[in-house]
Amino acid sequence: MNNPNKRLGTQTVLLPSTPSILGIGTVAGKKETEGPLGIYFDVAMADSLENNASWELEERNMLETAVNTVLKKTNTLERDIHYILMGDLLNQIISASYTARDLAIPFIGLYGACSTMALSISVASMLIDGGFAEKAVAATCSHFCTAERQYRYPLEMGVQRMASSQWTATGAGAVLLSEHVEGTPSITCLTTGRVTDYQIEDVNNMGAAMAPAAANTLKTHLLETGRMPNYYDLILTGDLGKYGREIVLRLLCDEYPHLCDNYKDCGCELFGNDKSVKAGASGCGCSALYMAKVLSDMKSGVLKRVLFMSTGALHNPTILFQKESIPCIAHAVAIEML
Amino acid sequence: MNNPNKRLGTQTVLLPSTPSILGIGTVAGKKETEGPLGIYFDVAMADSLENNASWELEERNMLETAVNTVLKKTNTLERDIHYILMGDLLNQIISASYTARDLAIPFIGLYGACSTMALSISVASMLIDGGFAEKAVAATCSHFCTAERQYRYPLEMGVQRMASSQWTATGAGAVLLSEHVEGTPSITCLTTGRVTDYQIEDVNNMGAAMAPAAANTLKTHLLETGRMPNYYDLILTGDLGKYGREIVLRLLCDEYPHLCDNYKDCGCELFGNDKSVKAGASGCGCSALYMAKVLSDMKSGVLKRVLFMSTGALHNPTILFQKESIPCIAHAVAIEML
Repeated sequence: MNNPNKRLGTQTVLLPSTPSILGIGTVAGKKETEGPLGIYFDVAMADSLENNASWELEERNMLETAVNTVLKKTNTLERDIHYILMGDLLNQIISASYTARDLAIPFIGLYGACSTMALSISVASMLIDGGFAEKAVAATCSHFCTAERQYRYPLEMGVQRMASSQWTATGAGAVLLSEHVEGTPSITCLTTGRVTDYQIEDVNNMGAAMAPAAANTLKTHLLETGRMPNYYDLILTGDLGKYGREIVLRLLCDEYPHLCDNYKDCGCELFGNDKSVKAGASGCGCSALYMAKVLSDMKSGVLKRVLFMSTGALHNPTILFQKESIPCIAHAVAIEML
Repeated sequence: MNNPNKRLGTQTVLLPSTPSILGIGTVAGKKETEGPLGIYFDVAMADSLENNASWELEERNMLETAVNTVLKKTNTLERDIHYILMGDLLNQIISASYTARDLAIPFIGLYGACSTMALSISVASMLIDGGFAEKAVAATCSHFCTAERQYRYPLEMGVQRMASSQWTATGAGAVLLSEHVEGTPSITCLTTGRVTDYQIEDVNNMGAAMAPAAANTLKTHLLETGRMPNYYDLILTGDLGKYGREIVLRLLCDEYPHLCDNYKDCGCELFGNDKSVKAGASGCGCSALYMAKVLSDMKSGVLKRVLFMSTGALHNPTILFQKESIPCIAHAVAIEML
């Protein structure tokens, strides 16, 4: 090999230069801001539309605001960002593409559904560690109203929600990554997911569809790094909700009986005990918003090592009408205070 | 900086280890195979459906076949591929995601519309040069029938085509990249695009929408590498068609009056002089299929240096109904025999 070998196994790589997360900018919906994590978000939306002509325009506005917020908070100029990596849930990731239109930054469009926050951080970290960028932004967003319309039913239909339904988070998060800076949360290794499919076909039971992908990536990460779950102060999945989280614990109970000690799901946390959301939160914005709490807790010393693992379901309505099941993926990012 | 600086400018990076393209697998539609490039394709489709229940299933089948073909042609095992990077035109890139489901390879989903071939090769090359992979596959596909239904009208409507309309190529291409191997076409540098928007709103005039993005990326590439167009034996854009190609030549005629000597557009070449396609070919599959000819010509010594630049339009129908214009992007990959 010409290059230093950074591979730890079939899915895990080391980042010897340990790229840093310098900050995050977040925009959250009203319901999200009223939840237990509200204090961590930068911008609170007044309502789901905020005088925009469509929910799609509002979603784009959220993503733009998140990107501009992290640049402002970190005193970073647009021209110092070498790549922006973004994706979202909408067809042709229009929130990301139209946000990139107003930025003079090379754009890498990603699609990982709700796994996008971990996917974009993963690729950005590798570009920095590989010497291609000094700074990069990884960002994503989701909006309850655009996602429900596109993936399930228009909200105006007033379709009843099921016990296993999840509530797409209205939120955007933009993370600024850079070459290592002392005293900041740093990316030490990554486990990139493979697509798994456990034959779930119900879009109202996404936690069950995504849980096996999360369990696979987590188990692979632990095996390939030689770590036990208690290496981390916190292991996070993106948006499995309460049933999906249960499934992960059951799938891994033989190997890791104490996993529940330090394993949380962002989807179970975002709305606290709000019963109206049924099984919990979902959407790209869910783990993106939770990242604000992770970084805050790492800065204050509450957390030292976190495994951040966003989970995504890779279907679309057309292919489910054609009787397909839902393939899923999970990407894991190890964030540590060194 | 901790890392070797590989940056040549705001959008261009060097790949000091010059990752190689070891081969390509292609699947082409009937019309594409009957065109002047037919001899370069590995698998010819019998018709647009090939006994599948839907065009979406056939499109996935094409992509799977392209990936399996390149593995077979290069005697490569699935387990030796460290990442597969794929995207396509369909909502939530389902062709790519469902193809990845059957492969035990870490999957990075990309969305760059018709720029996906160059985008996936770019990111794969950086992962290899950065030391994260020894081998990676970059792949994409498009299908005339799925794309027309999704972006414009169902084919059954029989809508009349305009002079500036382009014909979405039915084709899939999968490129195997690896660490440098002597005597193979190698990636020496990359220019990653920024999103540009010249306020075109007409989905039947995509060449005009994409041409400014291609011109911007090309000009930036030449300035940042200090090269003139004649450094390359061939400069290729992805799918601008005959009007888009004209616009690129006009936009750059002051700086590069001789650009037309060695500049071709894959969209103008794929179907030869077939008048039924109107302004030319388009789609992710267009530049992916043309890559088969590029690699063949490099192997036989006809070409030594090629700038391969796929172009993509990043809109969706919903956002155009909301009166938006079409943002576009182009990514450039320099491929050289060293």
